[in-house]
Amino acid sequence: MCEAAVDFARKNGGRFVEELKALLRIPSVSTDPEHAADVRRAAEFVAAELRRIGMENVRVVETSTPETIFASSSGPAQLVAERTGHPLVYADFLHAAPAADGRPATTVLLYGHYDVQPPEPLEEWISPPFEPEERDGNLYARGAVDDKGQMWMHVKALESLLATDGGRLPVNARVIIEGEEEVGGEGVAAFVREHPEELRADVALVSDTEMFAPDLPTLCVGLRGMIYTEIEARGARTDLHSGIYGGAAPNPLVALAQIVAKLKDESGHISIPHFYDRVAAPSDGELATWAALPFDAEHYRKKEVGSTALTGEAGFSILERTWARPTLDVHGIAGGFTGAGAKTVIPARAVAKVSMRLVPDMTPAESFALYKSYVESICPAGITLDVRPIHSGDPIVVSTENPYVRVATSAMRAVFGRETVFVRGGGSIPIVGDFIRELGTPTLLMGFGLPDDNLHAPNEKFHLANFHRGIESIIRFLVGAGEAQGQ
Amino acid sequence: MCEAAVDFARKNGGRFVEELKALLRIPSVSTDPEHAADVRRAAEFVAAELRRIGMENVRVVETSTPETIFASSSGPAQLVAERTGHPLVYADFLHAAPAADGRPATTVLLYGHYDVQPPEPLEEWISPPFEPEERDGNLYARGAVDDKGQMWMHVKALESLLATDGGRLPVNARVIIEGEEEVGGEGVAAFVREHPEELRADVALVSDTEMFAPDLPTLCVGLRGMIYTEIEARGARTDLHSGIYGGAAPNPLVALAQIVAKLKDESGHISIPHFYDRVAAPSDGELATWAALPFDAEHYRKKEVGSTALTGEAGFSILERTWARPTLDVHGIAGGFTGAGAKTVIPARAVAKVSMRLVPDMTPAESFALYKSYVESICPAGITLDVRPIHSGDPIVVSTENPYVRVATSAMRAVFGRETVFVRGGGSIPIVGDFIRELGTPTLLMGFGLPDDNLHAPNEKFHLANFHRGIESIIRFLVGAGEAQGQ
Repeated sequence: MCEAAVDFARKNGGRFVEELKALLRIPSVSTDPEHAADVRRAAEFVAAELRRIGMENVRVVETSTPETIFASSSGPAQLVAERTGHPLVYADFLHAAPAADGRPATTVLLYGHYDVQPPEPLEEWISPPFEPEERDGNLYARGAVDDKGQMWMHVKALESLLATDGGRLPVNARVIIEGEEEVGGEGVAAFVREHPEELRADVALVSDTEMFAPDLPTLCVGLRGMIYTEIEARGARTDLHSGIYGGAAPNPLVALAQIVAKLKDESGHISIPHFYDRVAAPSDGELATWAALPFDAEHYRKKEVGSTALTGEAGFSILERTWARPTLDVHGIAGGFTGAGAKTVIPARAVAKVSMRLVPDMTPAESFALYKSYVESICPAGITLDVRPIHSGDPIVVSTENPYVRVATSAMRAVFGRETVFVRGGGSIPIVGDFIRELGTPTLLMGFGLPDDNLHAPNEKFHLANFHRGIESIIRFLVGAGEAQGQ
Repeated sequence: MCEAAVDFARKNGGRFVEELKALLRIPSVSTDPEHAADVRRAAEFVAAELRRIGMENVRVVETSTPETIFASSSGPAQLVAERTGHPLVYADFLHAAPAADGRPATTVLLYGHYDVQPPEPLEEWISPPFEPEERDGNLYARGAVDDKGQMWMHVKALESLLATDGGRLPVNARVIIEGEEEVGGEGVAAFVREHPEELRADVALVSDTEMFAPDLPTLCVGLRGMIYTEIEARGARTDLHSGIYGGAAPNPLVALAQIVAKLKDESGHISIPHFYDRVAAPSDGELATWAALPFDAEHYRKKEVGSTALTGEAGFSILERTWARPTLDVHGIAGGFTGAGAKTVIPARAVAKVSMRLVPDMTPAESFALYKSYVESICPAGITLDVRPIHSGDPIVVSTENPYVRVATSAMRAVFGRETVFVRGGGSIPIVGDFIRELGTPTLLMGFGLPDDNLHAPNEKFHLANFHRGIESIIRFLVGAGEAQGQ
């Protein structure tokens, strides 16, 4: 069964890529209300394909997320819409043959997301973000790897198994594919909370991470959490002329700069009191594993980041800084005038988007409370602040003792011919926390991206060889998961 | 002659306002390339009116200003256009009767500008910025007072005199009205340098300032200069995901915040070494005059600025801080993501717009050199900077010993029934520096705006009573200037 499915996947690989391109042409940017219809179109596209390949109970499930956003960068906050959230797609197949000893078949929960990050800045893309283009064995498009391309591997692995075993799968499978991953929408979390019985599984498989290096099969067993915030600073009642009022009127942009400069020191250490109190150091074993990984800090600086120097806390390796240490970044500062030319305005209001990455055993709620209290304590004279959370995710760690970890490493060994490395990820996948917390389902992060895939950036790509190896790895994992239970 | 002209102005005041409204409907935003045609339309409108009222040699003069701007907030700098500058309007009348003793008639140079600031943020306007609306005796529109409304006072004073004296004026008059004041364009400065003979005058009259308080005639005898700059910070080669790279990749937004926080301390004192070396303190007499002005700092804070506190250097009054001390403000910070929702980006590039106001005897060139050198010296690790000047203006002081100052105070006494106060202005009017430096022409800043006219801000207005009193004051000044020479 396994080899027939793998053979099917190889023979149909070209078609799989063309189908993926069609999905990538849909600009399903979940954060932009103007793309709401595109997001829905992408959900329908995925649902239609799940139906076509023979999955059952395929549904496009409505979600709802009340949302307060800024209608403009300088206007007051307003409830733009009590908007309907982006839909999620559910499908299942629950007729897998029980094991020889009568135990029920293994159930695997497959998760992915069909929404994408905004494509800006557009002028830095070599080919347009929603016109997929193959160059040098890579497929370039927004969402190519995050996560449309990786989600499509799941769909195509299921198709390959269904097509070569008379419409049957070796495991029970539940598929949930959401459209709010990039905006931290509450839709899928609410679904997990409200329908645990529909998602009950022995193991969850998520392909939304990357391999540590080309050709190196990787399981990610830890993820940083995050808390994304806005700091709104208000000074004068209205925008003022800096000639007439400069020297007397408080400037919210200067105030935000002063606040940000006090949030972390120049070495990257966050200055919020008690922020590090709950930070758990990685085990000695984990640190030893990381030290043995093929990682060249100078290559990383030059080829991956491309900056004149790396930053961060002294005394910690780059991998520790990005996997096991909390960090703080500013993503944008709105307010005043940023167009071409000169406008001598002291804006009445400015907003900084600031996020912090969290590591075990920090919690978003406590971290936000410490942050808010500290920011308010350093508010400059003449400024009033509103410090608000936008979204958050828990940091997580996954046990490597789980039997399905062995199934996964065995599947990838068959495809890559190498042993799997265990790493952590710096980014946040909130659903993994939900699976663990709400469902008690151990979750495997088996991703096939590469470090230079330009996630969330211009020229996002997916190395097509990894797309095909990913499909084969997932086919072998699903077959192995069925056998594991049957043993 | 004088009373006939004043009578004409009073009888035609309603028409004057309607004409001004027509001019205000033209969105002549000089900083926005998309409004270039509107800017030209405003120039043609003004030129046509100057011809109609009987001024001579009316010309729309092309200017040229090479311009490097950012095509977008996140793309690289590029030469968008070797653009033609916005045109200026020239007119004159040079047949005034000589004095009884045969000396030639006085020549007055009248300056104004027909371009306006951008109207954003649009949603804060009660009535749309380019649909002038009268409310409570005020005319609301972008440009109502800065400077279309005040420039129109000049045109209407000339019309009133020409219409009531058989097409003659009591002085020789040269009129120059530019379209690049709000962008610091080089066009008018080049014209002044290249055609000094066309602008030669005994005195220049500029109405682009405000009265210190309602009903208090005011001459502004000092202006701060300025240097407007951009600091561009670059970190990684491309935008990066803050989850994956946060903790190792330099963040240009954080770097700009750190730089800005080091540019001035929390009391408002600029930290650039040697920045204050050339600052000349106001005279004791000037300080005594300012202390006697009807100024209530608490009223200013509450009603004019509307903030919880004022900021600025301890030991200096509010008037000193805004008239006689250099200041530094941030006007906008571009880069990253500022839309609705959350994007976890570490931008490759960010740009801060930073300006400094300068006072006698500072110079823009030296101040910029000190600033650039200091900013570069505090550049955070991993960041490369480009610190560039955008435009500048010299600080100026005008002598109160000039005989035309007495003509002006006498004219305003006749209209307002009060003595004129001498103040300074915090803003910059670069042309005044050019008139003094290039032409040696003493310049009177006789403005009729009010402190709450919302210059450069939403809901800009002009108090219509001041529009009419301004026209009458200018009529009386021109008649008085003619008589002064004839004495």
